[in-house]
Amino acid sequence: MSGGPCELCECPGGIVIADSPRWRVIRVDDANFPAFYRVVWNAHEAEFTDLDEASRAECMGVVAAVERVLRDRLHPTKINLAALGNMVPHVHWHVIARFDWDSHFPQPIWGNRQRDVAPAAAARLALPLDALDAAVRGALPAALD
Amino acid sequence: MSGGPCELCECPGGIVIADSPRWRVIRVDDANFPAFYRVVWNAHEAEFTDLDEASRAECMGVVAAVERVLRDRLHPTKINLAALGNMVPHVHWHVIARFDWDSHFPQPIWGNRQRDVAPAAAARLALPLDALDAAVRGALPAALD
Repeated sequence: MSGGPCELCECPGGIVIADSPRWRVIRVDDANFPAFYRVVWNAHEAEFTDLDEASRAECMGVVAAVERVLRDRLHPTKINLAALGNMVPHVHWHVIARFDWDSHFPQPIWGNRQRDVAPAAAARLALPLDALDAAVRGALPAALD
Repeated sequence: MSGGPCELCECPGGIVIADSPRWRVIRVDDANFPAFYRVVWNAHEAEFTDLDEASRAECMGVVAAVERVLRDRLHPTKINLAALGNMVPHVHWHVIARFDWDSHFPQPIWGNRQRDVAPAAAARLALPLDALDAAVRGALPAALD
């Protein structure tokens, strides 16, 4: 638990796709990586192992559901999953569809830019972002409590 | 499944801490991030959701066990977890103890270097790496098959 203000708690930081009692899913507003979702565990815990086993399983079930939609709808080159939290120590998972044409591939999104992308990345996805959001929303597991 | 040669399959890429029928744990040889372990799922699958639910749970159980040892023994500023695989599309998890004094903190290890570290990072850990390896080895779950 951190006592300071938490960026994730104060502001969604993107479009709220789903808001369940124990977790929420946000689409991050990132022009380079438009198919970038964040699964936030609502309880303000810093580390994955601060969650008990059932909570970790529930959290990873949400991550897997998002990953599956991104794979099925976008056929990305790779999915990237990460729980870092160096800046914001509140458990959240990045679920990012990566493409061999994207601005940083094969580098991590936090690495060095590899190329400029035109037309813009969002326009190159197989479906519009609002349709992708709806597919993600529809695939999320029911809340367990 | 990828047909090409796989770097993770051809070479351990570090010190093998444990080699179980379904997964293996390697300590990555990285001078900047000495407490950096990799959990490799032995089956040559590319994405986390290529694993069935039981396998995902088993894999994350290993990740959590490694994380817990790093937290207990090193009291890091933060743990970073990531499954990227852009270069090597074979499911593997990075489990990395991060410290506010490390070369890249609070940036991801793939981001920009923030500072030089002296004495070397390994010397600043609370215990020698071979003792840390032994603690990790001792904490891993028993193989399920």
